[in-house]
Amino acid sequence: MRYTILFLALLLCTGVRAQDTTLYSRTLASLPAYEAFLALPNDARIDGQLEPNLQWLEREFGQRGFTTQRLPNAGIDLLLVGYPTERADAETVLFYGHVDGQPVDPSKWVLAPPFRPVYGTMEVDSSGSVQYLEADLPERPEDTEVRLFARSSSDAKAPIMMFLVAWDQLVADGKRPDYHLKFVIDPMEEASSPDLPNAVRTHREALAADHLIILDGPVHATNQPTLMGGARGIATARLTVYGPRLPQHSGHYGNYAPNPALRLAQLLGSMKDQEGRVTIPGYYDGIELDAETREMMAGVPDDINDIRRKIGFSQADGVGANLQEALQYPSLNIRGMSSGWVGSAARTIIPNTAVANLDLRLVKESDGDRLLGLVEEHIEHQGFHLIPDGREPTDEERASYPRLASFSGSTSYGAFRTDLNGPTGSWLQRALMHTFDAPPVLVRTMGGSVPIAPFVNTLDVPAIVLPLVNPDNNQHSPNENLLLRNYFRGVTSLYGVLDEPLHPE
Amino acid sequence: MRYTILFLALLLCTGVRAQDTTLYSRTLASLPAYEAFLALPNDARIDGQLEPNLQWLEREFGQRGFTTQRLPNAGIDLLLVGYPTERADAETVLFYGHVDGQPVDPSKWVLAPPFRPVYGTMEVDSSGSVQYLEADLPERPEDTEVRLFARSSSDAKAPIMMFLVAWDQLVADGKRPDYHLKFVIDPMEEASSPDLPNAVRTHREALAADHLIILDGPVHATNQPTLMGGARGIATARLTVYGPRLPQHSGHYGNYAPNPALRLAQLLGSMKDQEGRVTIPGYYDGIELDAETREMMAGVPDDINDIRRKIGFSQADGVGANLQEALQYPSLNIRGMSSGWVGSAARTIIPNTAVANLDLRLVKESDGDRLLGLVEEHIEHQGFHLIPDGREPTDEERASYPRLASFSGSTSYGAFRTDLNGPTGSWLQRALMHTFDAPPVLVRTMGGSVPIAPFVNTLDVPAIVLPLVNPDNNQHSPNENLLLRNYFRGVTSLYGVLDEPLHPE
Repeated sequence: MRYTILFLALLLCTGVRAQDTTLYSRTLASLPAYEAFLALPNDARIDGQLEPNLQWLEREFGQRGFTTQRLPNAGIDLLLVGYPTERADAETVLFYGHVDGQPVDPSKWVLAPPFRPVYGTMEVDSSGSVQYLEADLPERPEDTEVRLFARSSSDAKAPIMMFLVAWDQLVADGKRPDYHLKFVIDPMEEASSPDLPNAVRTHREALAADHLIILDGPVHATNQPTLMGGARGIATARLTVYGPRLPQHSGHYGNYAPNPALRLAQLLGSMKDQEGRVTIPGYYDGIELDAETREMMAGVPDDINDIRRKIGFSQADGVGANLQEALQYPSLNIRGMSSGWVGSAARTIIPNTAVANLDLRLVKESDGDRLLGLVEEHIEHQGFHLIPDGREPTDEERASYPRLASFSGSTSYGAFRTDLNGPTGSWLQRALMHTFDAPPVLVRTMGGSVPIAPFVNTLDVPAIVLPLVNPDNNQHSPNENLLLRNYFRGVTSLYGVLDEPLHPE
Repeated sequence: MRYTILFLALLLCTGVRAQDTTLYSRTLASLPAYEAFLALPNDARIDGQLEPNLQWLEREFGQRGFTTQRLPNAGIDLLLVGYPTERADAETVLFYGHVDGQPVDPSKWVLAPPFRPVYGTMEVDSSGSVQYLEADLPERPEDTEVRLFARSSSDAKAPIMMFLVAWDQLVADGKRPDYHLKFVIDPMEEASSPDLPNAVRTHREALAADHLIILDGPVHATNQPTLMGGARGIATARLTVYGPRLPQHSGHYGNYAPNPALRLAQLLGSMKDQEGRVTIPGYYDGIELDAETREMMAGVPDDINDIRRKIGFSQADGVGANLQEALQYPSLNIRGMSSGWVGSAARTIIPNTAVANLDLRLVKESDGDRLLGLVEEHIEHQGFHLIPDGREPTDEERASYPRLASFSGSTSYGAFRTDLNGPTGSWLQRALMHTFDAPPVLVRTMGGSVPIAPFVNTLDVPAIVLPLVNPDNNQHSPNENLLLRNYFRGVTSLYGVLDEPLHPE
């Protein structure tokens, strides 16, 4: 609703900065260049696909007077571009983006192959199935539902292109940022940037900054301007409970040979209460949400009824008073569980093992290894003797311990979180407030995990996520798209950020 | 140990009935005829394979003066043979056997194809792997470890052949049973005798008897003469707990959208205590084990240490004081459990469903439908709204009920159990005691389930299982075999049964 009003305002050229009309035409005019950028295939797993993208970036940034530099990296080099200010004592702002995209399966792209950009619409009919229709580029696209379909159209060539258009307008308006600007472009984000932490350590000096703005991901589900202070980290684990050496006839030994599926069920069941809250002592240690933080989270316009209806449940777990509060705590999620056979393959046996795969979403207060340790201790407190993962119990272990299990886990990466009301967050809040005459949605932390965390933590810099693209962009899936409204608003947002003084007068 | 002593006794012709030497030569001489019987393929699922077997039986029993009659049955007709006594007011004893065998995979038979009978040995080496070696038929096979390998050599042409040999000796000794004898031979037991209950109802009069002796299955694990009073029945069920409509990103909604794997774990965990005893009220109702029964069960020479070592656990579930007691109770076994993905397929999701497949072994006191009803009630008492199995919850159900599940089960067949100290059991105990000068192992009920139960229950006749073959016969598997010692002892056992007066003087 607020968003519609904003665009009405934009149309009427009231309450909007003077340069917006020019910015609007420039954005519209930039679409062919964006289509050309999107036409470059960009799967980092395919040799040679990223090089034309990097050359495109070097040319575009170079033409605009940016320094460009490749930072050696295992795999494909990072690209760092820079535009220093001449102001004395200026701070440095580092933007982060990525130019590579998810792998594609062209057979699943409805309107055109993934690297032939095409305009169209996406509609969900009453039965829930999605219809894609090709469309002409409308005269005033920001007022329609027309999208640009192509791999990486949202994730994440969009913010790079938006940045370039906003920059051009800034220069046309005779302005420059009041900070040293760096923009690092990751060519392997969708390939999990396997060596990024090392590269960041190696190039710490080149990347050094006072503020980090991460240009990735979609805005809040309501498609309003959004700032995010962090993301949860992730650890994963595997828990195996051992039963008989081989599956046993459930008649001969039912009621006698212990069933590992029951024991796994009881063990997993003991880790949480009926409301889904972890009952393992210490699991939530260190997390304190003060009144101001709770107020910020209560202000996030999550449409709980809509979420419930879409996902299909009537009562959420009891961790936190609302969705945003729930995401401030580490999770302990059973992502998979298996024992014996089910369905038509079911056999009347006592299974020999029962396995659960877990994932633990981490918050800043919750070190992954500490949580894994607590889970392991809990398993032992439930009477299980733990053996190393990856091998069967020995005869001696079977003879000695009534309950046998293995547990192995590892932390993929930690969480990061920057105070949205700290210097970096306040600056960005001001920029968006000035641009849209309305405060952005403030998300204290994303529920998901992004491999940027090592980057943030290694550079030890306050980092805020500035997402720009529409939430229904089919990220990582076929028919990825960018709602043109978000393209226009994204350019406007970045103009506001480039134009906003780091420190208020 | 006792068994070795018995055969020493047999060899020395002391403490054994006068005709035993003759019986011995006759048994040895019968082996070529048995080989010919075993050479007839007998998979009921393959058209035409059973007919030569039925003709063989009609000829063998017919030559011995038995009446023979085919009882129409869906699929393959049952064969009923009879030998009435001339005694006034005699009771009727019905023997049950089956002539069909499990399907075969000839490529897995080591010594010879499944329908080319061959003598050999089976040895398990220190690493646990099995070695098969061909052997000559020894002069006194009952004193060796030599086996006859062929499909159905144990399961269950053995007792039919043993019966014929014992009968011939009985006739040679100028004796006849003091009861009307009927022998019904099922040609579809390994194909689950799908229409047997109907056939038994149709032919109730022809099959009517005062005692039923089931000649099937192996003796107790110690390979001692054994009588079994019954078998557990079986019911199966499927329990599905519903989570989100589709798998959800565990980051976006972890701690918020309820996880069905956790709920299934907690639900299954709530059905039993830590010792594996069912905690659902009423589940064990009606089961009372008096002192005499407990004594009988404690007398079964189960080698608990050996069972633990073989199966690989150190502490049995707490249902009953020993294995035999445990089998007197219905089980509630998780035979399979699945949710999401595990192992290399694991994905960081909240799964959309979690499924458990259960089997409930039934005892005579425990009607399958009653137990399924108790489990269903328990699920509802745990706060779950149950929807019909086989469809997804509707949007309205998802919006209305915090916990959604489906549960569906059915009773395959009930248990049967006959008092081993009742008239039928006492008679058979006397017969074996007179034959071997030692009491048989008395198993009150088998843990497993056999499709004979409808037969027993429809005829409403006291039924006792008289197993004769060795426990390590590879029943249902490749390399099925009959230990020749068991062949000799089986003939001796059946001679004893045919010769034993139904009622002591």
